Amino acid sequence: MPIVHIHLKHGRNNEKKRMLVEKVTNAICESVDVTAEKVQIILHDVMPENYGKSGVLGFDVNEIEKKN
Amino acid sequence: MPIVHIHLKHGRNNEKKRMLVEKVTNAICESVDVTAEKVQIILHDVMPENYGKSGVLGFDVNEIEKKN
Amino acid sequence: MPIVHIHLKHGRNNEKKRMLVEKVTNAICESVDVTAEKVQIILHDVMPENYGKSGVLGFDVNEIEKKN
Amino acid sequence: MPIVHIHLKHGRNNEKKRMLVEKVTNAICESVDVTAEKVQIILHDVMPENYGKSGVLGFDVNEIEKKN
Amino acid sequence: MPIVHIHLKHGRNNEKKRMLVEKVTNAICESVDVTAEKVQIILHDVMPENYGKSGVLGFDVNEIEKKN
Amino acid sequence: MPIVHIHLKHGRNNEKKRMLVEKVTNAICESVDVTAEKVQIILHDVMPENYGKSGVLGFDVNEIEKKN
Repeated sequence: MPIVHIHLKHGRNNEKKRMLVEKVTNAICESVDVTAEKVQIILHDVMPENYGKSGVLGFDVNEIEKKN
Repeated sequence: MPIVHIHLKHGRNNEKKRMLVEKVTNAICESVDVTAEKVQIILHDVMPENYGKSGVLGFDVNEIEKKN
Repeated sequence: MPIVHIHLKHGRNNEKKRMLVEKVTNAICESVDVTAEKVQIILHDVMPENYGKSGVLGFDVNEIEKKN
Repeated sequence: MPIVHIHLKHGRNNEKKRMLVEKVTNAICESVDVTAEKVQIILHDVMPENYGKSGVLGFDVNEIEKKN
Repeated sequence: MPIVHIHLKHGRNNEKKRMLVEKVTNAICESVDVTAEKVQIILHDVMPENYGKSGVLGFDVNEIEKKN
Repeated sequence: MPIVHIHLKHGRNNEKKRMLVEKVTNAICESVDVTAEKVQIILHDVMPENYGKSGVLGFDVNEIEKKN
């Protein structure tokens, strides 16, 4: 430990994921006194049809935004 | 919060997922006094080869059911 | 399955949790054609010092609200 | 319950997953006195670009290993 | 990885947890060709009021069983 | 989203958790172009008897370290 799960909207490329893993690892090391090799991070890409907020499917929010 | 993770067998279409997100959000709002925009739901589609019950892989259960 | 994890702010009593489990189970059964005994729900009570939004600890938000 | 989530590097075939589900279920039954049908296991296949350790993306570790 | 989360009913003592960690680690190593130090396991003790099955709170199931 | 779960060894005080939430939120915002209020973080404090690595319970590792 620390073991981290980050759920984020599908679509980030490897460059963004590389930066995310590096920066979050540093942030954790600076805050709770652990060394980097202790930190493991798992990213969960979430498709819009698998995400809901305010009772509405992310897929549907995207569809509305496309029409506007 | 509330933050909800629902793991369910792969294969539900968007219509079912739409209803799931809407109905679960309402159920939560009615039970623990939060407003809908506070509720976030993440659906995890689980493939049959990634699910086990009673020590048996879901994939194998499906294969047996196909033969019967 | 379905297997559900609901993370919610610490402090709901058993009556609210009873209603939450019942209503969420019904919502799931109505949406994705499963019977109630297939649905398992785990509630995760989250203390304010273990929750952060907008970079701020829930504990600190509560403290500010107490003073206002 | 018990409900188990196992996150592992993407790429194991069904034969390995079959053995994993069987052996982990037995291990749990032998340790905490439950019967097999109570045990549910969800496997999460993690792609190398969705995994980080020591601040480095698994994808990049693989690339370096390919060159060596 | 592998990273394992095991949710189980509250109440197991350290001896059972010790056996659980040891046996599950061995089961994983035997199945997916990893060495033991790669395997991390987190146990989540679930109180009966935080668990629901078939729409009923575990706490209430226990109460009924006590009366019988 | 992003929704983050951080599992860490029990024992960090609020000051460390405050810094952790702030720094991890900033790290995420800088990496995947989201604004801070979109980021929710849940910290899971893990007791040594609920953590295993290399098949050994964290509790037992602590006991050995105390004797040395």
